[in-house]
Amino acid sequence: MKVLHNGLWPSPYCLTACPALSETSHLSSRSPLGEHLSDAFARVNPMKRVPAMMDGGFTLCESVAILLYLAHKYKVPDHWYPQDLQARARVDEYLAWQHTGLRRSCLRALWHKVMFPVFLGEQIPPETLAATLAELDVNLQVLEDKFLQDKDFLVGPHISLADLVAITELMHPVGGGCSVFEGHPRLAAWYQRVEAAVGKDLFREAHEVILKVKDCPPADLIIKQKLMPRVLAMIQ
Amino acid sequence: MKVLHNGLWPSPYCLTACPALSETSHLSSRSPLGEHLSDAFARVNPMKRVPAMMDGGFTLCESVAILLYLAHKYKVPDHWYPQDLQARARVDEYLAWQHTGLRRSCLRALWHKVMFPVFLGEQIPPETLAATLAELDVNLQVLEDKFLQDKDFLVGPHISLADLVAITELMHPVGGGCSVFEGHPRLAAWYQRVEAAVGKDLFREAHEVILKVKDCPPADLIIKQKLMPRVLAMIQ
Repeated sequence: MKVLHNGLWPSPYCLTACPALSETSHLSSRSPLGEHLSDAFARVNPMKRVPAMMDGGFTLCESVAILLYLAHKYKVPDHWYPQDLQARARVDEYLAWQHTGLRRSCLRALWHKVMFPVFLGEQIPPETLAATLAELDVNLQVLEDKFLQDKDFLVGPHISLADLVAITELMHPVGGGCSVFEGHPRLAAWYQRVEAAVGKDLFREAHEVILKVKDCPPADLIIKQKLMPRVLAMIQ
Repeated sequence: MKVLHNGLWPSPYCLTACPALSETSHLSSRSPLGEHLSDAFARVNPMKRVPAMMDGGFTLCESVAILLYLAHKYKVPDHWYPQDLQARARVDEYLAWQHTGLRRSCLRALWHKVMFPVFLGEQIPPETLAATLAELDVNLQVLEDKFLQDKDFLVGPHISLADLVAITELMHPVGGGCSVFEGHPRLAAWYQRVEAAVGKDLFREAHEVILKVKDCPPADLIIKQKLMPRVLAMIQ
């Protein structure tokens, strides 16, 4: 079993949900920057995207599908993806919403605030950044009011895959220096609970790359030319 | 059980997968145009979006989550959402990808080609429309090469939820008058197989609204003002 990623996908979380995975070798393999754009990687994922999972001869893309696969294969504790019809539907509801909701605005916030100016050397007009951060705030409010409400975790009293996927996205603007918890006290308390449920060490390890992203050196011209069209397509 | 939608979500498909649903009353209720933007509807879905499902006191949003809920609740035939680990993962992979892939570009194609100029009376610059249609073609190629390949259906020899969700999105640009099957012979043959598997009558019923969308009368000013910011956020 191998999960290829770019360091921005917190594959150590697979271990939280699936301790059995720690016995497999090469669970998590961070590919060098831009490696997933190579023709060789296209044999793993023709869309040239990470994360991608290889389990023997079976390859699988899309982080949500990979997490569900691991949860089913390793028969993880029920709270991660409950058997209960309504609780499971709440996890599915969050996992479906986040693609065009929180995920999109967290990614845009990181790229507009840090990755374009620091990594790619491209300035972002202040009004574009302001619109991106306003959109992020709308989605944070939805996360707080519609999904978290007054519960301990997104789906109820226990941590689930919905919380793992949500915190992963939130750590993008956090890594970019955005104050995502300002004005969102329930989200701030939830963040502490997720960190405690996962374990502080694993949480730090999982987000090590994203929390240092502000300090990454500028991309060289070849990497920049390769990345630019894909980044624009991803965040437009 | 009630599924509220705007006529663009083919709720009759719920019946294909779950014949038991035909015994429930008010399965599918098409809300009048713009009704989901009302404060009353916010009690059903605070995000004011359709489709939304109500099953007794349990409300659920997001079409993918609703389909999964129905599949679990009514224990539908296995091919819709297989128990087999790898086959299920392929359904999940498609359902995750489509949110930012096919779904996004099909929606943009419909709005840029028809809904803006005809329904909202807003002209779209030719270069914007061209870029939207080029993006759609890239995603059609991914659908054909990565997901369908040489199989009968997206996940194997039988129809699954992935095919239902995919055909639903494809019918948006079809309804908008785009030639989505030109240059995609395998997709054209797959379309025929999906139509046959669902049944021609149900297929027609499910897509009745979207196939007539070109002929809808222009929106009045109040509806236009209500819809415009939401549409722009949805397709940007």
